[in-house]
Amino acid sequence: MKINSDRLWDSLMEMAKIGATDKGGSSRVALTFEDKEGRELFCNWCEALGMQIHRDKAGNLFARYKGKASTKPPIVMGSHLDTQPKGGKFDGVYGVLAALEVVRTLDENQYQPTRDIEIAVWMNEEGARFSPAMMGSSLFIGELKLDDAMNHQDRDGISLREALVMTQEIGSLEFQREFESYFELHIEQGPVLEAESKEIGVVTGGQGIAWLNLVFVGRSQHAGTTPMEYRKDALFALSHLMVEIEKSFSEVDDLLVTMGEVLVQNSSRNTIAGHIEATLDLRHPNLDQLQDGIQLVKNIAQQISAMKDVDIVIEERWLSPPIPFNQLCIALVSKAVNDLGLSHREIVSGAGHDAIHLAKHCPTTMIFIPCKDGISHNEEESISRHDCQNGANVLLNTILLRDQSLAE
Amino acid sequence: MKINSDRLWDSLMEMAKIGATDKGGSSRVALTFEDKEGRELFCNWCEALGMQIHRDKAGNLFARYKGKASTKPPIVMGSHLDTQPKGGKFDGVYGVLAALEVVRTLDENQYQPTRDIEIAVWMNEEGARFSPAMMGSSLFIGELKLDDAMNHQDRDGISLREALVMTQEIGSLEFQREFESYFELHIEQGPVLEAESKEIGVVTGGQGIAWLNLVFVGRSQHAGTTPMEYRKDALFALSHLMVEIEKSFSEVDDLLVTMGEVLVQNSSRNTIAGHIEATLDLRHPNLDQLQDGIQLVKNIAQQISAMKDVDIVIEERWLSPPIPFNQLCIALVSKAVNDLGLSHREIVSGAGHDAIHLAKHCPTTMIFIPCKDGISHNEEESISRHDCQNGANVLLNTILLRDQSLAE
Repeated sequence: MKINSDRLWDSLMEMAKIGATDKGGSSRVALTFEDKEGRELFCNWCEALGMQIHRDKAGNLFARYKGKASTKPPIVMGSHLDTQPKGGKFDGVYGVLAALEVVRTLDENQYQPTRDIEIAVWMNEEGARFSPAMMGSSLFIGELKLDDAMNHQDRDGISLREALVMTQEIGSLEFQREFESYFELHIEQGPVLEAESKEIGVVTGGQGIAWLNLVFVGRSQHAGTTPMEYRKDALFALSHLMVEIEKSFSEVDDLLVTMGEVLVQNSSRNTIAGHIEATLDLRHPNLDQLQDGIQLVKNIAQQISAMKDVDIVIEERWLSPPIPFNQLCIALVSKAVNDLGLSHREIVSGAGHDAIHLAKHCPTTMIFIPCKDGISHNEEESISRHDCQNGANVLLNTILLRDQSLAE
Repeated sequence: MKINSDRLWDSLMEMAKIGATDKGGSSRVALTFEDKEGRELFCNWCEALGMQIHRDKAGNLFARYKGKASTKPPIVMGSHLDTQPKGGKFDGVYGVLAALEVVRTLDENQYQPTRDIEIAVWMNEEGARFSPAMMGSSLFIGELKLDDAMNHQDRDGISLREALVMTQEIGSLEFQREFESYFELHIEQGPVLEAESKEIGVVTGGQGIAWLNLVFVGRSQHAGTTPMEYRKDALFALSHLMVEIEKSFSEVDDLLVTMGEVLVQNSSRNTIAGHIEATLDLRHPNLDQLQDGIQLVKNIAQQISAMKDVDIVIEERWLSPPIPFNQLCIALVSKAVNDLGLSHREIVSGAGHDAIHLAKHCPTTMIFIPCKDGISHNEEESISRHDCQNGANVLLNTILLRDQSLAE
């Protein structure tokens, strides 16, 4: 059984017209009318296949394709249809419409699955309008509380509750329903598969993330009247810290470090930086090595602080442990990829995905395809038709393997 | 002849009451009613000595003490009475009121000078309300044009012209009147004299200043999905640049470098910095070495750019060449300091002062006294009564030496 590549591509392009931007991207921010219209198009396509549409209390959408054992937990595929304000055509959308293509293929082959097959469209994965990101899946698994989330407001003061009522996307399905398993197909959003010419990424889990807040306190002084040896320059301290961190971290495989935000307080061209606030984002697939990374940052900060006579205060803001995906699910994806003869490598998901939440709820894994130059969250986001087709075929074959294993 | 230390201190404290802040500073921003009140207090004191008050077209104030040869160019002392919004009691004010104390001393000793002695109170030295700083002296020497400056507006949309009319500080004296010489006494606004236990700084000139704008263009990518070796991280490039600059600059005496402003565009905690704008302020007393410094920055930027695969664009925004003060004036200050038996060192003015402009107009120099911890532009700005007294006595003796040299 093979998916229909043209049909999938046409659906992607038709969905992209809703909220199309002038530079070829899509703008369907969560629970806007563009998002609502995208969901309606998806629902129409599903209903044409005889699928039933259900919504839960958080606006997560589930399209159900009936299986033989309909009382038992469904096999679920999914992702999201909402985008960044200037997003691409594929982030999230590809996972949902490839899942639809899988069902279309099952349907035209008159394959009746053992279990119900559901497609999940998670509400507000992007977090661009309501914080946090991956909100729908977080509510579904019970990590985020509905009463709290309902009061979150967008920049115009519209609450999630109001937005759900306005779009009529609220339903009655309960959270934490049992899933037999969950599979999410997604673009990599990174450069690795493309650079290594791999057609498929077999995702083994989500890496751990540590967020640190750093404050550098030196002394704000006149740039013209203070000899170098009398300075407590917070910016030189920051620079030395980053150079040392880069050197030390390069000795640990897969350890990522990013200083994304730097704010010099009361900054002025002719004033020595006396107070800087900055953020560090550390990531590693292994918890021990992530924690070693945090300790390394602390040790280096202590050395630099003494060397530059600048106080460096480090606050551990957030730690999200690595999430390993289900070994059996990963094995099924590997088998599907091998059966199709596709080049592949194991990869850890660097970004957050709904699957990271679902992994705490049921056997879960993900499948990645390459995206051009690793670019995502950008109107220029792009994939090849070749990779688009491969990913959907891997998803189809994985679902078939899983479903058949349940029949035995 | 000696100045009256208590009288000078009392005048400083009385002036500080106008616009006094709760933390012991003064707030008399240029051409506000507090500044106007400060000028009036000064004028009253001058008139009590029989001095004549004149204003020029830019609101610069001149108090004239008659000498024997009143048709010849005057010897001028001066500084400014305006402050930063939360300024100290001494920046500028000390130079004006010490000059007043010099005239009071001459007057009580019934010393009739050879030349007229004038005290200049320059308009808007701080630049806190109307840009640029040192505006009055810049207009006086003809570097800034009056028609342009008059339209400069403060944050409330009030133009300089309106502010001058509102405060009635506008007069009819012409710019670029001939001065026999100009002497400005000032707090150091830096830590050197205090750290080296020197009572007086014999100022040899103003250092050269180069302002560079730097733009780092890397690639804005996801902090979680981009392996370190695929990154073009503008912040790592900036950090390496600063560490290398610090290393190279430490080999050149007196070369100062400050990165005061750093702006990460579209910064976010989990996004690699793709575009950073930053400023560099370079200073050196010698033009060749300042220009060598600029070239060094460019060379280092080229190396780092290649190493980190991040474009670094450098724009030379402004170059102010070093301004040497008049050798004869400096020699007179040195003689006065030696006659008084005070410890001293030669020093270059790191900050801008009205004297830097005046040096292009007439024989000019400055005298510095220490200030506590080098702190200025701050309510905590502080000087000792000992240093306060010494500075004024050096100014008095310098003026006497200059005046006597003209009588011969």
